[in-house]
Amino acid sequence: MARGRLITLEGGDGVGKTTQRARIAEALAQAGLSVVTTREPGGTDGAEAIRSLLLNAAEGAWTPATEALLHFAARTDHVARLIEPSLAQGTWVICDRFTDSTMVYQGYARDLGRPAVEAIEQAALGGFRPDLTLILDLPVEEGLRRRRHRGEEADYYERRDAQFQHRLRAGFLDIARREPARCAVVDAAQPDHAVTRDIVGIIQDRLGPL
Amino acid sequence: MARGRLITLEGGDGVGKTTQRARIAEALAQAGLSVVTTREPGGTDGAEAIRSLLLNAAEGAWTPATEALLHFAARTDHVARLIEPSLAQGTWVICDRFTDSTMVYQGYARDLGRPAVEAIEQAALGGFRPDLTLILDLPVEEGLRRRRHRGEEADYYERRDAQFQHRLRAGFLDIARREPARCAVVDAAQPDHAVTRDIVGIIQDRLGPL
Repeated sequence: MARGRLITLEGGDGVGKTTQRARIAEALAQAGLSVVTTREPGGTDGAEAIRSLLLNAAEGAWTPATEALLHFAARTDHVARLIEPSLAQGTWVICDRFTDSTMVYQGYARDLGRPAVEAIEQAALGGFRPDLTLILDLPVEEGLRRRRHRGEEADYYERRDAQFQHRLRAGFLDIARREPARCAVVDAAQPDHAVTRDIVGIIQDRLGPL
Repeated sequence: MARGRLITLEGGDGVGKTTQRARIAEALAQAGLSVVTTREPGGTDGAEAIRSLLLNAAEGAWTPATEALLHFAARTDHVARLIEPSLAQGTWVICDRFTDSTMVYQGYARDLGRPAVEAIEQAALGGFRPDLTLILDLPVEEGLRRRRHRGEEADYYERRDAQFQHRLRAGFLDIARREPARCAVVDAAQPDHAVTRDIVGIIQDRLGPL
């Protein structure tokens, strides 16, 4: 049986990752593939326990280094217990956030730096990387407007100001420029169905299953 | 004011680290120094929360990589919130277990490997290292006998067999051989007062405060 593929969705809050994750899963399932959807931080019992340490913490409770290490601790559990076994069984995995979020939030926006995050990634995951990363890109003001419209509770990541959101967006775009073979930027300001159409086209071009 | 020094105590279970930690603190305090004693994993509120994830877990619940990342996550909190501020104020810090325990338990005994632990250490702590590490060395059978004599509950680390304890001992001795400037091996099979005498002599030789 062919090995499954890992597709990760990245981008700031309110860009539509959850909606598109469900649509990608549906498109892949309709093509006859086995699919599992998951998210980070979390995705397994162990990783969810670590997630609760991260998301219930007060602003500034953890240093950026501690945050990054906790995220990678959760990620190694998620990869070892869910993602890698799924891929080995031929299942495709669609994951909402992965290493790029740690790179952008802790590495870029909280000043831990690229080299420190890369070093932890290498030690934690070895050469394990997503097969495709979709970066959903949206102007910051539009993302903030959408989240207000949804009436969402502000969680740890959303208690941030617009300047912080601008750093996040620039970080994700920088990653896409550095790793064009793995990453694709998607215009998330379009209507949902147009975003899905673009994503399905990218998956077909890059991975060819549909 | 002169910066304080970080002294770490390492070794397997039952070698007398807790007893000697108290005696070192007393000797330094009698010499007029400000001293704080602490232990890992834990030592701060955040690190204790991470400790509970580690020590309450079933055997094998975490992969060695996840364990190492959780230990370093706790350690960065401990260093940032307690150890480094204490040292900066001129306080000496005596810590029961530190990075060498992660190296030995996860790196050596659980096969994560030296390079992975060193990479995480560098990313997490930069160049921060103990000023002196006292490795309390005891034949494995004697350590097991002492723990049975104390009637201690078996915790996560103590649910291990003798073969595992032999790997731990060999690991600590290997670290001492690799880093003789930082580490000193102490014969912990002696009576407590003789171990203390040796340790006080080493501290005086290496750091000169007494």
